[in-house]
Amino acid sequence: MISERLLKDIEFIVEIDEMKKILRRTSVIGEDQRENDAEHSWHIAVMAVILEDYSNEKIDILKVIKMLLIHDLVEIYAGDTFCYDIRANEDKRQRELEAADKIYGILDEDKGEELRTLWDEFEEMKSPEALFAAAMDRIQPMLSNYNNDGGTWREYDVKKESIYKRIGPVEESSSELWAYMKYIVEDAEKRGLINKSKE
Amino acid sequence: MISERLLKDIEFIVEIDEMKKILRRTSVIGEDQRENDAEHSWHIAVMAVILEDYSNEKIDILKVIKMLLIHDLVEIYAGDTFCYDIRANEDKRQRELEAADKIYGILDEDKGEELRTLWDEFEEMKSPEALFAAAMDRIQPMLSNYNNDGGTWREYDVKKESIYKRIGPVEESSSELWAYMKYIVEDAEKRGLINKSKE
Repeated sequence: MISERLLKDIEFIVEIDEMKKILRRTSVIGEDQRENDAEHSWHIAVMAVILEDYSNEKIDILKVIKMLLIHDLVEIYAGDTFCYDIRANEDKRQRELEAADKIYGILDEDKGEELRTLWDEFEEMKSPEALFAAAMDRIQPMLSNYNNDGGTWREYDVKKESIYKRIGPVEESSSELWAYMKYIVEDAEKRGLINKSKE
Repeated sequence: MISERLLKDIEFIVEIDEMKKILRRTSVIGEDQRENDAEHSWHIAVMAVILEDYSNEKIDILKVIKMLLIHDLVEIYAGDTFCYDIRANEDKRQRELEAADKIYGILDEDKGEELRTLWDEFEEMKSPEALFAAAMDRIQPMLSNYNNDGGTWREYDVKKESIYKRIGPVEESSSELWAYMKYIVEDAEKRGLINKSKE
């Protein structure tokens, strides 16, 4: 009565427990403890539920949530790459493609393919759903840093220009969320949480 | 341009960061580190995506995922109640109702109401969606214990009868997942991971 298909599903579910061990740079608000991929993925999935209506374009919210829940699974094998680390980002794509083959390959072909296609769409960042998902992924660490006395902005001396570049998908996805992001960046700068560029 | 509504949404999103600090009894697989509510909620939401087809009845999977993402938010104020702790479970309902008023009260009325209604449905455990969500919530720590040398089963000397009672919603929701749960419990017992009842 227990099918091969179910055993593959269970293997996948047990394997992704690893997400709870992959640390990001950002910290949990008010703690020294760094956030992990499972916590981050949960947080942005809830954010999508809460913020759906701010998308400029109509979106399939189920697709967005699925993307967000699985978008970092590749890091189980490829590790977390800090978004402001230029060198580590050079071979990120290749490492993550190999990781995607491995993690989605655990599942039966049709199921693995469905999730892989969602991840590819997320990575391509072109559809309204992928852009909104990317916006959630960008906004969450902004809120953490803003409420953590500057967090990684100060720790890694990140310039305002780099931050604006990083949160670009928010501008493409939602006028109101973008207005709020601009408010946060400018206010953070005023309060000395972001260093001014030397240019 | 930044609405009162958005500011409430942001307040809610920042508040629920607390979920990353609420420890459950179950440990991350292969670690001493106890799992927290954010990690657990992420894991069961992914499980719903993967296991949807095993539901006996047709389900609205978006509703299930939303339920799972938010089902433990009340623990931000009410704390985690260990499922096998009879005394702590006596006033759990009252503590959680008050917590629900508080957490969902942060949002604008319509949005808070939507999530609160989902949580009420989850708690009532009657609709096919609520039963499937409960099944995910029950299966995940079973997999952790099974892969963690008995985990909380051994740590708290949990009896087989209590485990079967706890995973009841799986039986109501999915024949195939229930068959797998029975296999796990019996195999765990054979391997000495569960103590036999003295009855």
